[in-house]
Amino acid sequence: MIVLSERWGKRSRTQWNLANSALCAAIQSGFWPVTFWPVTSMLRVGASVRIARFDDDRVGLVVGESIVDVTDVVEVSPGHWPPVGTVQLIAQFDRLRPALESALASRERHPISGVRLLTPIPWPSKVIAYPVNYHDHGHEMQASYRASNQGFFLKPPSSLSGPADPVVLPANPSREVHHESELAIVIGRTARDIDAADWQRYVFGYACLLDMVVRGREERVFRKAFDTFCPVGPWIVTADEVSDPASLGMRLWVNDELRQEANTRDLVLDIPGMVEMASAVMTLHPGDIIATGTPAGVGPVVDGDVIRIAIDQVGEMSVPVQQGISGHTPVFDTPYTPDIVKQR
Amino acid sequence: MIVLSERWGKRSRTQWNLANSALCAAIQSGFWPVTFWPVTSMLRVGASVRIARFDDDRVGLVVGESIVDVTDVVEVSPGHWPPVGTVQLIAQFDRLRPALESALASRERHPISGVRLLTPIPWPSKVIAYPVNYHDHGHEMQASYRASNQGFFLKPPSSLSGPADPVVLPANPSREVHHESELAIVIGRTARDIDAADWQRYVFGYACLLDMVVRGREERVFRKAFDTFCPVGPWIVTADEVSDPASLGMRLWVNDELRQEANTRDLVLDIPGMVEMASAVMTLHPGDIIATGTPAGVGPVVDGDVIRIAIDQVGEMSVPVQQGISGHTPVFDTPYTPDIVKQR
Repeated sequence: MIVLSERWGKRSRTQWNLANSALCAAIQSGFWPVTFWPVTSMLRVGASVRIARFDDDRVGLVVGESIVDVTDVVEVSPGHWPPVGTVQLIAQFDRLRPALESALASRERHPISGVRLLTPIPWPSKVIAYPVNYHDHGHEMQASYRASNQGFFLKPPSSLSGPADPVVLPANPSREVHHESELAIVIGRTARDIDAADWQRYVFGYACLLDMVVRGREERVFRKAFDTFCPVGPWIVTADEVSDPASLGMRLWVNDELRQEANTRDLVLDIPGMVEMASAVMTLHPGDIIATGTPAGVGPVVDGDVIRIAIDQVGEMSVPVQQGISGHTPVFDTPYTPDIVKQR
Repeated sequence: MIVLSERWGKRSRTQWNLANSALCAAIQSGFWPVTFWPVTSMLRVGASVRIARFDDDRVGLVVGESIVDVTDVVEVSPGHWPPVGTVQLIAQFDRLRPALESALASRERHPISGVRLLTPIPWPSKVIAYPVNYHDHGHEMQASYRASNQGFFLKPPSSLSGPADPVVLPANPSREVHHESELAIVIGRTARDIDAADWQRYVFGYACLLDMVVRGREERVFRKAFDTFCPVGPWIVTADEVSDPASLGMRLWVNDELRQEANTRDLVLDIPGMVEMASAVMTLHPGDIIATGTPAGVGPVVDGDVIRIAIDQVGEMSVPVQQGISGHTPVFDTPYTPDIVKQR
């Protein structure tokens, strides 16, 4: 293990577990002395994996720049409608984990550049979102409230898109569409009335999320619900791969301009508080997504832009922006220009 | 057919189709002259059925006071998670219709009083809702906007409950919980950018819906998202069973007091307009529910009340109100009393 530590010290916990899987196989085959069993306890603590959806609704585990196809292991039928395969995978994760680890250790790896990544959870029960959850964003929007005293809203599953999909701007030329950079939490278990202190038991993982919005004074959900207005990805990182979700750096660029830069330590309502508040109101289910709110720096995007989001220990993705021909609604014919007070 | 007309004149189209099914069987067996084929064209126009979910996630067709179990016909596995069986049934309805008609004509009927009805669609992609869509409700709430210029919000699938389930009041004693009586539209096909003129092609059916809400100034979704805050039922009536959804009487009682009475002809944004606006923004899917808005007469309910809603040609249901111990959130510790201007 010392040799492994030196060679693997900078690798992810997924790769650590790969090493442990090999070790475990060696032990089980009798090659490794049984007295070294405690080493494999990491496996029992929890496999760290990055779960991706790709190509035609297949499921894979991401290791470095490679992907291992585990569609059959997680019992997902590609093309099945509605596409609830990854919701079922998350619900069954404890049972499926040994088979996933075995597949990760033994199966062929393919370059991730050769697949098309999809949004990881296309048909969750709900996408919960907290408005104004960083003070600097509250200041730039001149909002009198915060998520902690305002509650949450919802985005529709139909707005979810993936890291390879464009954000398509609706045909409402009188309105600006803004980017909002957010950490996404993925729920792992069905539960109601979760105590903030117990939050970790119910969080399955994390992802990057863009909460796109048409600026205006109309119903918030309506302005945030367009198809492709919720890119999530590039994959789901399981919770045990993130050392401290309350201390993650997050940055967003439009083309080469850094527009948003923040750390999750500055959340107004923190992650335990968000899980507690959402579950006070609603039964949460595996696969439910919580968009945790955006920091200052929101701004418009136009046709041809590329939005890049990067979150420490979670991942990075770049999505192109395209002007679409769908989505005109007379409500947005009334012009509106947001009054945003720059914070820098 | 004349004899049938006299005897069956006041029956539902479901019962008409039953008669036609028998007729069809007679024709196919050679008993009835083939020259009478045009009579059976009603079958091809579309079977009128009332679709219910009951007991342990079973699916049935309701005829009068009876229910026919068609769980196997619609290929639903009771207990399968997530419970998307009725969403799949709606998506596959055209294919399943002949088998459903056959089951309706041939299978044993059970008294509906002997089953427990459940919410018809427990895991839709989305529950869309239009705020302030009757002028008299806008006046009583002193709202400056209407659904037509405000857009929609969403309720979570976890808030859906059935005709036999209680509305459970959350443990937030500083706030009132109000009833809102609404017609629900159920979407039948996946589509985006539906033209208002084509709305009928995309509407599968109708149901009664109660949009329960905690009064306050916080995020609308947050106040309307509690578990059991969206009773739907008692079943889904298919669209062809409703002669004119733009002319349906709707009434709501709390205990024996008539609180709300309206007609869908008074909707501000009508049904074609609601389908058009929702689909301009979002891809709609089979099983999506649209709550069409409430008329004047909203008011508080308390532990022990019974809410009864009845909509012409759709159905009627009575749900009890219970004070629960779940759902406390400090946000609602701030007292708020709504200023409602009585319209009668």
